[in-house]
Amino acid sequence: MRIDKLAVVGVGLIGGSCALALRRAGVVGTVVGIGRSAANLDTAMHLGIIDRARRLDEDWASELRDADVVLVAAPVAQCPMLFAAIAPAVGAQTVVTDAGSTKQDVIRAARAAFGGALPRFVPGHPIAGTENTGAAAAFASLFEGRNVVLAPLPETAHAATERIASLWQTCGARVTTMDAARHDAVFAAVSHLPHVLAFALVADLAARPDASEYFDNAASGFRDFTRIAAGSPEMWRDIALANRGALLVEIDRYGDALDRARALVAAGDGEGLAALFHQASSARRAWELRRTLPIVEDKG
Amino acid sequence: MRIDKLAVVGVGLIGGSCALALRRAGVVGTVVGIGRSAANLDTAMHLGIIDRARRLDEDWASELRDADVVLVAAPVAQCPMLFAAIAPAVGAQTVVTDAGSTKQDVIRAARAAFGGALPRFVPGHPIAGTENTGAAAAFASLFEGRNVVLAPLPETAHAATERIASLWQTCGARVTTMDAARHDAVFAAVSHLPHVLAFALVADLAARPDASEYFDNAASGFRDFTRIAAGSPEMWRDIALANRGALLVEIDRYGDALDRARALVAAGDGEGLAALFHQASSARRAWELRRTLPIVEDKG
Repeated sequence: MRIDKLAVVGVGLIGGSCALALRRAGVVGTVVGIGRSAANLDTAMHLGIIDRARRLDEDWASELRDADVVLVAAPVAQCPMLFAAIAPAVGAQTVVTDAGSTKQDVIRAARAAFGGALPRFVPGHPIAGTENTGAAAAFASLFEGRNVVLAPLPETAHAATERIASLWQTCGARVTTMDAARHDAVFAAVSHLPHVLAFALVADLAARPDASEYFDNAASGFRDFTRIAAGSPEMWRDIALANRGALLVEIDRYGDALDRARALVAAGDGEGLAALFHQASSARRAWELRRTLPIVEDKG
Repeated sequence: MRIDKLAVVGVGLIGGSCALALRRAGVVGTVVGIGRSAANLDTAMHLGIIDRARRLDEDWASELRDADVVLVAAPVAQCPMLFAAIAPAVGAQTVVTDAGSTKQDVIRAARAAFGGALPRFVPGHPIAGTENTGAAAAFASLFEGRNVVLAPLPETAHAATERIASLWQTCGARVTTMDAARHDAVFAAVSHLPHVLAFALVADLAARPDASEYFDNAASGFRDFTRIAAGSPEMWRDIALANRGALLVEIDRYGDALDRARALVAAGDGEGLAALFHQASSARRAWELRRTLPIVEDKG
């Protein structure tokens, strides 16, 4: 695993942390950061995340010809525009990957743009993040012990997938592969829906004339439940729209689940409520136990 | 502030932590623990939380006559039964308080039971907890910097309210007072509803035949959003039923909020979604900032 030249398009929390992790592992030569904001690129330079910077309104495509890997870690809504600029500029050996939270829309954009380079595009999704954004939020250990899902296409070259898998493993992540449609369905349920639910709750409380009395009495349960409602409105708008179909399925399914819970409360059905809450509580406790168990490395 | 004898009915996380905090402050003489489970009372004895124990199937009421304070920290559904036993047994100076998460139902039970002792009953709600239960989970600092809401009745003696306020302040808490109906409405929104929402989400995922693929891909956002779904099914069933009216109001209101969010997703209304998410995100960030600011003590 060696990357002589890495181009990171979007040097934020994800792109910046990936560059830092690869640097720490000593596997990367030059890192070029490409982005919209000169201030953020300056920060990335200052923090030693990148070796040089190109703004999107400069000639940045010329940096891609001799890049081994191009990591697109920009908001998913920008992928069509970025891919259109990247596709004609990459070299014959360059592997391109992305870090978007949705995969079917990114793949649509890739199919529209990449042409003959499509076998060297590897759709990816690192399952990591914090509520902070920008190069200043990046840190080398972000991906340690986290999952990265790759969703290779039928056309994707095996060597390209292997290269990106190695890249993320070098960052400390576990890599799995998943069909793109399945990926979007699963993440609609376990990530995109919870964000919409948390945003909806906090927005509704904030809109009340007596909002402060509610917020003043909210405690640690509320704090944890709504932490994701502090996330970037623009990023989550993009994700909600990019994965609209799967998200609507999950919103409707959740509406039905909430209706059933409501009916139990309305009927005063203590047995039914206890059974529902118990199903959730035991599943949540089992999940917590599994995820906090030490990882047993496969030495085989 | 001095309590020569404290009786704690229900020596769990809340009752046990209160006893430990008062002991640490050196303001309490004897602590008698009263409860259902001999094993839990043994634990409480072993941990030095209580000086002696009475099981609910023993003669425990005789311990109340010379108690200065009786703290009922049992599940809210048990209050009617417990109050009926406590009311005839307390002494003329004994002040009784509770720690229930709902107040109107507790007050109904108190009105039915206490008769002439009603002025010495102070409805209370310490806003603190963890996902752990029982005497083994108790710790002296649980209430430091937390809120305790008291909901005194028109009949409640001012001195009784003052005494319970002092008790919780000695535990490190901030004490506020609130009308019981208002309390139940506010906590339905910021606590009981989020619990129902989290339970409903996790139960729905757990019921899927392919549940493990969802759980395996859930990350830190899911972890925080669903932490409260690991809570006690019995305790939350009791709370949901005890505060049924206010909870149904909030569930319906939330259903409307979710419908509006769904409509924005379905319409592909990026501007509307960004506005909704922004309203939530800025309110959530402002709340986090306020609650993590250092507390400025009033020296006046």
